[in-house]
Parts: sequence; structure tokens; C-alpha cells
Amino acid sequence: MSLNLEPVIRLPQTSVDNGVFVAGERALPEETPVALTYNGSTHAVMMASPADLEDFGLGFSLSEGIIADPEGLTSMEIVEHDLGCEVRMWLQETCRGAYQSRRRAMAGPVGCGLCGVESLAEAVQTVPKVLGALQLPPSAIAAAMADLSNAQRLNREARAIHAAALWRPGQGLIAIREDVGRHNALDKLAGSLARAGESCFASMVLLTSRVSVEMVQKAARMGVPIIAAISAPTALAVRVADECGLTLVAVAREDSFEVFTHPKRIQRLGACISA
Amino acid sequence: MSLNLEPVIRLPQTSVDNGVFVAGERALPEETPVALTYNGSTHAVMMASPADLEDFGLGFSLSEGIIADPEGLTSMEIVEHDLGCEVRMWLQETCRGAYQSRRRAMAGPVGCGLCGVESLAEAVQTVPKVLGALQLPPSAIAAAMADLSNAQRLNREARAIHAAALWRPGQGLIAIREDVGRHNALDKLAGSLARAGESCFASMVLLTSRVSVEMVQKAARMGVPIIAAISAPTALAVRVADECGLTLVAVAREDSFEVFTHPKRIQRLGACISA
Repeated sequence: MSLNLEPVIRLPQTSVDNGVFVAGERALPEETPVALTYNGSTHAVMMASPADLEDFGLGFSLSEGIIADPEGLTSMEIVEHDLGCEVRMWLQETCRGAYQSRRRAMAGPVGCGLCGVESLAEAVQTVPKVLGALQLPPSAIAAAMADLSNAQRLNREARAIHAAALWRPGQGLIAIREDVGRHNALDKLAGSLARAGESCFASMVLLTSRVSVEMVQKAARMGVPIIAAISAPTALAVRVADECGLTLVAVAREDSFEVFTHPKRIQRLGACISA
Repeated sequence: MSLNLEPVIRLPQTSVDNGVFVAGERALPEETPVALTYNGSTHAVMMASPADLEDFGLGFSLSEGIIADPEGLTSMEIVEHDLGCEVRMWLQETCRGAYQSRRRAMAGPVGCGLCGVESLAEAVQTVPKVLGALQLPPSAIAAAMADLSNAQRLNREARAIHAAALWRPGQGLIAIREDVGRHNALDKLAGSLARAGESCFASMVLLTSRVSVEMVQKAARMGVPIIAAISAPTALAVRVADECGLTLVAVAREDSFEVFTHPKRIQRLGACISA
């Protein structure tokens, strides 16, 4: 198998429609093992779309708390191997000590001796309070989701590809990143924004996916006050969004959506009904 | 936050429809950190639906190659902690040595010293050849997907919950498991089948989700000759299914589906057209 680095590739298939076989082909999302390494040693291998890997490296490093700002990385190189890609990163001297001790603590969840209680505590990390004072009218949610849909270039080619985007009132879509993995898409977005020096404070993150707790944690670390997602959240995602002060909008359809936490950021222009 | 162990829970929300706010509630999937421990030490923490955790423990242990058969575990206990659940497993003496050396090798992808190339090789594992000689008419795919849809109990309550099921001609649905994570659903299915002593050789795995390469690897290790999924596969999943001899059916709709690999297991009863 040779490595393909196009995020979408056409492969042969056979359509079977009411028992009739037709040979053809279909555009499919590529999925590539990506090793994220720091100072020559692997931190994680993620299955990801082979696109925007610099954004992925930077965003992952920020989301995971390995660096506090883009200056924490002194250099980054994308290296192609036979079996996948390596995002080869080098940490600034001041980050190295913190990373080494974090890595020793992190060893827990992955088999280096921590017991169940300890590794659960390590896995359930606290997230910073979200402070952004952004307020939006309901119509902004629909407008933003329409902008998101129009900008999903890879998904239009191959479907089954997630997107994460940043949207700001008056400016629209600031950035969008796509990936077969929804967590990766959000990490890539975080990286692209950090690289561009864009603040998330008065902006909303848009997601094509369901909202698991890790999506809320990543958005909170980005400092985003509102998440709007096409699909539903998990109950744990709602609890964590509630705790950290993030407004969680989900099940966003053309004219309707649901608010699960902190509805104060959605302006009540219309009538209010208490069911 | 107190731990909820119901896989579906109703939480308050506010529906906003054309600017009109209505306070209500919605059933949402729960998501719980689950620590999988062997002999007192954590192997992994997964975010999962708090249901069928015995199946999860056994299926995960088999999928990950930690044990070769259910007898590899001498005991299993589900322990509730404040932050999540622990599936506490003890390995048979003969498995312990193999597990220890595997764990040392596995340390690679998660930050204990392996470089990028080594950890990619560790992440891209070879899968066994699939030998099952099952052949199905196209109508069986539609029938099986209808059976799957009817049996998704949790998803009917809360949506956004994946399912994996085993289906056998003449017998229909043998088992189904549901989870917020599609990998977990398949691991739970594998565990439930191993527990019941059900063979996968002449059966088909049904998935509600997209098919990533890990889903193909897990199904191949179960010995399943056909996967049928509602959504599309990744290109890498297609390549690995092709290599290991597994028939990959996806984009399964009411009257149509697409075959990406080894179409010999789908009987050609109708006309054939070469496009």
C-alpha cells in the first residue's frame, strides 16, 4: 500500500440498486495515521485527513496543554513515511520540563501503572471558565450554519467529512477546517486561528458533528463562548458546558435550534413560552 | 457532578423555532469515562455509554489482542467511582507475560520514547485474513438493515447513538449493542458474542456509522466476512478490507447499497451493467 496524501480520493465500487449491479467509483475521504512527535518522541498517533497538518500539530499542542501559545514550538516539520505522516515538533526550552512531567503524569491512562481511580481523574480534566460576552440573535445561528455548509469543500466532494469553523458577527466565517475526525477538525481550526493570531473571544464555533465532552473542553480552552452544532450533545458535554459557562447550541436546523446551557447569549427578540 | 449510569437521560433545554423560545427537555445520550484496567493497572480510558460494560471489557480485550479467548480473563468487576466507571479485569497467568511485553511495545504511540516511524508501525497493525464463505442476495442487505433499525432501542430514545449488530441468514439479528462511540458499540458486540459462544464465520456485521479502518480491523479479528454500514467508508478502510478479504458494503439505503471490496459474497441475481 502506498501512502496517499490527498484528503479525498476516488476508488472503484459497485452500486447495487434493486438487485442491479453497476460498476463505478466514488469519492471517499482518506484516513492517514499521523504521529505527533515532540523532541523526537511520539506523543500520540491519530487517524486524520491528510490536510492542514501544520494546523493540526499546533492546535493539538494547544488543546492538549503541551504548549501555552504558538511560541512554545520552536519548529515543526511534516515528514512522510511509508505508513503515515509525522508532525515533528520541537519544544521551546521553557516548555520541555513541563512537558516531561506532564508526560509522566499522563502515562496513567495508557498503561504505565496508574490504577482506575487515578486514571479517571487524569482523563476528566477541568476546563477554564469561558468569559466571552458575545450575544447573538437567533437569526445569526441559521446564518452561520448556512455559511458553514457552503464552505465545506471536502465534504461536498466526498461526504462523511466533519468540519469545525469560527464565525464572528459582522464578519462571517473566519476559518474552517475539515477532517474525517471531528476532534481533529476542531484541533486544526484551533491551530489555524492561533497561527493567524485570531481571538476566539467574541466568536462562535460551528460544528457539523455531535458534541461530545471533549469538543466542549477544546472549545473552552480556545476561549469560545458559544458552540453551535448540527447534531445533539451528550449529557456529559452539557454538564461540562454548564460548569464552564459556555453556551451550547445544538440540533441546529434551518429555522430552529436548541440551547442546552447559558441561553443568556442568545437574544430573546421573539415571544417567550414556558412549556 | 454525580455519576449517572443510565445510558439515556432527559435534560432541560430551550427550543428556539423561528425566534420563539420554548423551555422543555430532551433525551440525550450519556457519556461516561470508563477505565479499562488489567491486574490493577489502567490500559485505557474510553468515553462510552454506561451500558453493557462487561461486554465492553471482554470485547475490548479481544479486539486489542490482550486475550485470545474469554478464558484469558479470570475475573471482571464493574466498579463505580465518582468520576466514571472502572472495568476491573484480571488476566489468566498464561496471558500476563504476553500482556506485559505487549504493553512495553505499545508504550510507543503514547509517549514513552518511540520515534515517529516506530509508532506508526505500531499503530498500523496487520489483520488476519477473513475466510468466511457466506454469500447473500442483495435483498438480505436491505432486510438486515431494517432489522437493525428496528432494534436500536437507545437510539430511538435519544438519537445520536451508534449501533453494531450481528446478522445471520435464516436467523436475523443475533445480537445488537449501542454506544455513543461506534468503536465501543462494535467492541461491546464482540464481547457479547464471545460470551454467548456465537461464531461470526457465517454472519454479517451491521453498523449505523461510517466505516473507519479500525472498524474493519475489529470486524476482521472477529472473523466476520461481510460488513454492511449505513454510511461511507474511508479510503484506508477500503484498502484494508480489500487486503484482508472482507466484503465491505456501505451507503446502505432501503433499496440500494454500494460494495467496495470482494463483491463475490453478494449474489448477482439481477442484471449486470458495466458503466
